[in-house]
Amino acid sequence: MTTSQSKSLSKLIYPFSVAIIGASANKKKIGYEIYKNIKKFKGHIYLVNSKGGNIGGNKIYSSIISIKDEIDLAIIAIPATYVIDVIEECGKKGVKAAVIITAGFSETGNESTEQELLAVAKQYGVRIVGPNSVGIANNDITMNGTFIMDSKKGHISFISQSGALGAAIVYKTIYENIGFSKFISLGNMVDINFCDMVEYLATDNDTKSIALYIEGIKNGKRFIKIAKRCSLKKPIIALKSGKSNSGSRAAASHTGSMAGDDDIYEAAFRQAGILRADTIDDLIDWANVFSLNKTTGNRVAILTNAGGPGILAADECEKQGLIVAKLSKETSEKLKKILPPYASTNNPIDTIAQAGYEEYIKSLKILQEDTMIDAILAVVVVPNFTNIGMTVHARALVDGWDKEKTLITCFMSGEIATASMRYMAANDIPCYPSPERAAKALGALWSYSRWYNEHKNKDTDIPNRN
Amino acid sequence: MTTSQSKSLSKLIYPFSVAIIGASANKKKIGYEIYKNIKKFKGHIYLVNSKGGNIGGNKIYSSIISIKDEIDLAIIAIPATYVIDVIEECGKKGVKAAVIITAGFSETGNESTEQELLAVAKQYGVRIVGPNSVGIANNDITMNGTFIMDSKKGHISFISQSGALGAAIVYKTIYENIGFSKFISLGNMVDINFCDMVEYLATDNDTKSIALYIEGIKNGKRFIKIAKRCSLKKPIIALKSGKSNSGSRAAASHTGSMAGDDDIYEAAFRQAGILRADTIDDLIDWANVFSLNKTTGNRVAILTNAGGPGILAADECEKQGLIVAKLSKETSEKLKKILPPYASTNNPIDTIAQAGYEEYIKSLKILQEDTMIDAILAVVVVPNFTNIGMTVHARALVDGWDKEKTLITCFMSGEIATASMRYMAANDIPCYPSPERAAKALGALWSYSRWYNEHKNKDTDIPNRN
Repeated sequence: MTTSQSKSLSKLIYPFSVAIIGASANKKKIGYEIYKNIKKFKGHIYLVNSKGGNIGGNKIYSSIISIKDEIDLAIIAIPATYVIDVIEECGKKGVKAAVIITAGFSETGNESTEQELLAVAKQYGVRIVGPNSVGIANNDITMNGTFIMDSKKGHISFISQSGALGAAIVYKTIYENIGFSKFISLGNMVDINFCDMVEYLATDNDTKSIALYIEGIKNGKRFIKIAKRCSLKKPIIALKSGKSNSGSRAAASHTGSMAGDDDIYEAAFRQAGILRADTIDDLIDWANVFSLNKTTGNRVAILTNAGGPGILAADECEKQGLIVAKLSKETSEKLKKILPPYASTNNPIDTIAQAGYEEYIKSLKILQEDTMIDAILAVVVVPNFTNIGMTVHARALVDGWDKEKTLITCFMSGEIATASMRYMAANDIPCYPSPERAAKALGALWSYSRWYNEHKNKDTDIPNRN
Repeated sequence: MTTSQSKSLSKLIYPFSVAIIGASANKKKIGYEIYKNIKKFKGHIYLVNSKGGNIGGNKIYSSIISIKDEIDLAIIAIPATYVIDVIEECGKKGVKAAVIITAGFSETGNESTEQELLAVAKQYGVRIVGPNSVGIANNDITMNGTFIMDSKKGHISFISQSGALGAAIVYKTIYENIGFSKFISLGNMVDINFCDMVEYLATDNDTKSIALYIEGIKNGKRFIKIAKRCSLKKPIIALKSGKSNSGSRAAASHTGSMAGDDDIYEAAFRQAGILRADTIDDLIDWANVFSLNKTTGNRVAILTNAGGPGILAADECEKQGLIVAKLSKETSEKLKKILPPYASTNNPIDTIAQAGYEEYIKSLKILQEDTMIDAILAVVVVPNFTNIGMTVHARALVDGWDKEKTLITCFMSGEIATASMRYMAANDIPCYPSPERAAKALGALWSYSRWYNEHKNKDTDIPNRN
């Protein structure tokens, strides 16, 4: 990436001033949704609509040209026929980045207009996200430049080729208390594509992992080359759809690009250190495990207050290539001393339901001191029928964690686990609703760790921005 | 099953009168939790505690012997040392079924007392669930005889060897709006085991599918023989833990029974028509698909308002051995007429986000009339940014469904999909939060259907109770 390219992307993702072109007081318009969402943004906001007027006392400029101040980013939601003219105006005004929400370009067969749009943008050096994007959001600066709901603040940056799936995933993460740093809906990718965004986000200080939803990539070789370098900086997790025959045909029709032979993607992803997710759940679960921001070894201790879930966790750990380590006699003896009489001090360590705050604090300490254990997987069935309290284990895990040993958690029990899961999220400890999903996420962390350790000494030429 | 055995199990599952032995006003006691839960039961409730007294004005009998009326079921939560005496009293009183909540038997190494308990129970013909059970519940008669929260009313019967995992799964289903008919926590299985319960539930009119969580089965051959017959009546889905080395060791220590070679279970399950779930999510997702109460063919039409999720659904369908059918020219033309201009009328059918109630009603009608399609998988991204309304698709799917064609649904978008998902559940239409889980559940339905069609002409000797 050249310095000027990187600057344009900075204006796109970290703008000081944003113009909403097509801003509208009409609640049936997308231009209203974007206006409503952008209001929380702490930078300068300019509303533009050829009809002029105002929204809630805020002036609407009749064109971007008529704004005197500098504009970093234009978000455009106007009828397709006017988009090219507006991009030209943006160019003349010196705007370096634009997100085009407007649909009706290549995705509806209108290839030529889209190419014309690109030509004008290039002429003026305006970088484009879209068209046919649901927008971009950067929670690091409280900017929701989309027409969908706010995502939670966190450290995953999520880039989606499909707007609707992107929205559905954002809504899922709100529900599951998982936070995003950036959300980028790429739309038709006439200009800015996965390569540009991955390269940019690899040096973003607020991003801990990069999640991608991909239907098809046009410049595969370049992408893999870039991803391989960037994976050393930030773990990349990708959900690539169109594996099947019917799915591949549909992807081709949906995005207009060939989905391509799945085996080629598979091999390329492996080479580039990209973790390939099988499902939407995997994509977010795995991206979220990197809130720990570290690598791990593969010797796992499973700490649980219920036998059954511990066994399921052990099964999935082994399936993921993790080792459910045999505990040393010393560690086992130490645990025996502090746990209730009928607890099991093998691995999985079954503290039984009677164990509460003190037992969990002490168990964690013992396991953290054991150098033969790399990671602790805590699986808690939140009790509502003992006198222990429903959030005691969550509290103990946060209080007792040394922030050195890898700690992954699972809190089962639906609604009554919510407080515990939120407490974990607030403390950047990865947390999952089932033992299998927790163990799979730990497996992804281990899989990345192996790749990272193999490749880390090969210098990456991407400078850090911090 | 002999008639007298079946009668005892009827008294266990459909009692007219229940005695809670160990009922307590002390909120720290399990005997209080059970009292609190059983109150909603419409049958006769008798409270028993050697200390006498009353709870909330309800008399506490000092022993079961002192109750004059007939007692069908005793639920026992008293210290372990008194359990055998109480079972003897139950026997003398003529009680034919007891659930022993009390722990401290074989699971803590106390094998001999457990065997003594069994001998006494046999002497008097008392059938036992437990010991070390969290209890049993039958939502068909509003009986929660457990110390955990009420599950929702539905048609899955769930039998769990692990109490804590059973509880965690009940809580998960409350959260996900999935309902149970019966919940049985088998505990140590000194008497009543998977064989007895599966055989009983196979002829239960309120049960549509049977979900099992298994750690180890002692009488494997008998179980498979029974399960094979019962699978023809009711689909059985099993989550068997202890697949891995560490998991298998833990299962052996947790239940005291050998988990056994996993390959043997795998083969036996296949032979018996049992669907083997890989995860907790699978277990419940698949059991829930049988709320349709039918078999299906494998030619699937995917109907979606968002391209990306449709592609993911197609990918998973093919992985499950389903056929994402090429639509006939006729069907495709019909769809073209009623859908928005840029909709895709291939399969997946992408109605695009603009399609609302009318388009979904009409699409459903067209697909239902097409004899080349066996099943419809509707994947909806619930929109909050269009003027279509957030529950319009759910409404259309319920209103437009002919109840003949297999219909599986997915409503994405976390919290804002909740109303739609509840509406599906209330109408017995299987509904899932992700396209992959929906497609996997449809795959399970198809897998069962194949097995069923191969075996259905082999007469089962289990009589219907209706």
